Amino acid sequence: MRQAGRYLPEYRALRSRLGLLELCKTPEAAAQVTVLAVEKLGVDAAIIFADILLLAEPLGVGLAFHRGEGPRILRPVRTREEVARLPAVDPQDALAFVFDAIRLARRALGGRVPLIGFAGGPFTVASYLIEGGPSRDFLRTKKVMYSDPETWDALMTRLADLTARYLAGQIASGAEAVQLFDSWIGCLSPHAYRRFVLPYTRRVLAALPPDVPVIHFGTGTAGLLEAMRDAGGDVIGLDWRVELGAAWQRLGDRVAVQGNLDPAVLLAPPEEIRAGVRAILEAAGGRPGHIFNLGHGVLPMTPWERVRLVVDAVHELSQR
Amino acid sequence: MRQAGRYLPEYRALRSRLGLLELCKTPEAAAQVTVLAVEKLGVDAAIIFADILLLAEPLGVGLAFHRGEGPRILRPVRTREEVARLPAVDPQDALAFVFDAIRLARRALGGRVPLIGFAGGPFTVASYLIEGGPSRDFLRTKKVMYSDPETWDALMTRLADLTARYLAGQIASGAEAVQLFDSWIGCLSPHAYRRFVLPYTRRVLAALPPDVPVIHFGTGTAGLLEAMRDAGGDVIGLDWRVELGAAWQRLGDRVAVQGNLDPAVLLAPPEEIRAGVRAILEAAGGRPGHIFNLGHGVLPMTPWERVRLVVDAVHELSQR
Repeated sequence: MRQAGRYLPEYRALRSRLGLLELCKTPEAAAQVTVLAVEKLGVDAAIIFADILLLAEPLGVGLAFHRGEGPRILRPVRTREEVARLPAVDPQDALAFVFDAIRLARRALGGRVPLIGFAGGPFTVASYLIEGGPSRDFLRTKKVMYSDPETWDALMTRLADLTARYLAGQIASGAEAVQLFDSWIGCLSPHAYRRFVLPYTRRVLAALPPDVPVIHFGTGTAGLLEAMRDAGGDVIGLDWRVELGAAWQRLGDRVAVQGNLDPAVLLAPPEEIRAGVRAILEAAGGRPGHIFNLGHGVLPMTPWERVRLVVDAVHELSQR
Repeated sequence: MRQAGRYLPEYRALRSRLGLLELCKTPEAAAQVTVLAVEKLGVDAAIIFADILLLAEPLGVGLAFHRGEGPRILRPVRTREEVARLPAVDPQDALAFVFDAIRLARRALGGRVPLIGFAGGPFTVASYLIEGGPSRDFLRTKKVMYSDPETWDALMTRLADLTARYLAGQIASGAEAVQLFDSWIGCLSPHAYRRFVLPYTRRVLAALPPDVPVIHFGTGTAGLLEAMRDAGGDVIGLDWRVELGAAWQRLGDRVAVQGNLDPAVLLAPPEEIRAGVRAILEAAGGRPGHIFNLGHGVLPMTPWERVRLVVDAVHELSQR
């Protein structure tokens, strides 16, 4: 979760020269920060450096990242006409730089750890396109869903197909697993999720090669777990607001789980961090199919040594 | 949930003359908007007009409400010393205006519907005191919890005792049920909730007379339901991010449930609103012990007629 990010001094140094989009579009640099995070932290997998909104840029909506803010979409997409006007996009052209970064990162990793690709989930990307940026209540998004379901369907279908081709391209370029970050689905009722999101997520995941593991992640999903599982994914990513053992029991044995330490715990004293790691490993009970992770991204103000401490604690405590 | 609020034209007219705190401190006006909402909406219970942070003001922390913003605490409380310096507060003096409003509202309601009193939950009030205002991540709050548990305990103990006396005073003044709004507990892991919140909430609720029903509410609590129940309350308030039937099953038959329509659904067309109401009533299955409500407060931009539509739909559909 945000393995390479602002909490790493080397990343900050790079970012003082390159904007976020520029960094993503420079495959050598993206591969470099991907590998750097692995070497510095000692994690068991790499995740390609990219952003969930990269796919929005070739749609011509005016994606911009301003320092210290979330992403902005300068020309939001809210009406039937605005959806219809979105240009056809071929990820092989428009997002070739991501595929190049994946090839370079694979080569630099040399098989030491597997490389994970990723994309934003259709709801989460749609919500940025509709809201024009981050949102607290997602009211514009919900308004389109409930008041203009045809526009919603048109937008979600476009995004689902584009996302499926984008992830398939990442896999063809060397990604050995992929993660779908539908980060903001936790704003929805289970009923709304099943009706307005699940069919499109299923469309994305059903289009991927069956032998590549898929991690399906969201935040605030304690009420959505069964529905997320029904949408697809070999691994369900959990945030910290659900007890891992109880969540896994609800999900059943046919899926693995990932998670779920509160990133805020990394701001606590070392003994609290170790206690938090231990509690999660105990909840997982040593069963195969648990990927230890934070419940969401590393917070920018986290001392990087604390992330290393978590990784070391996981390795040490899970070997006992 | 925010029965009297900015979505009501009469409330807005009153607020153009009186600030929020001023309105709360004018018992006649607070009782008037309480009763107005009942008459205008046709709801089955009144909830006294007040604010969960009223209790913070006599603590001398500089509570302020600026137009269009959330509440601000001008002198946040973050250290042992700052907690120790909080003055002793007697709710009978400092919050007498709430008790007066309750007496006036009871009289004006004349037994037509019961009157509910309320207070903020200890975590939620503590988070405002520590953060200094609304927060997205509650990082300062979590930092105190994890890094300075003695300060956390001192603050939560103070708030729990004050809240218990405040609610007992409301009951003595005529409140026929009380609701504890621990609105922001959903940011916590179940483990953190049980360790850092549950003991204090239990302390509040155990101090109240046993014959007055208590509604225990929070948002984003789909992973916390069992822990909230264990903290206390005759009714567990659910937000919309959990399926009501599944939640009630987890909670068991010994508690009632309240909820849980997404307030954003009230911005949808009338047929969608009715469908949303119907789905919740069906999930409740006509069993006694379900209080229909929104999952959180009415959104300020909601046309008030849509709230009335919900009330009428609940009455009509639940009589079938």
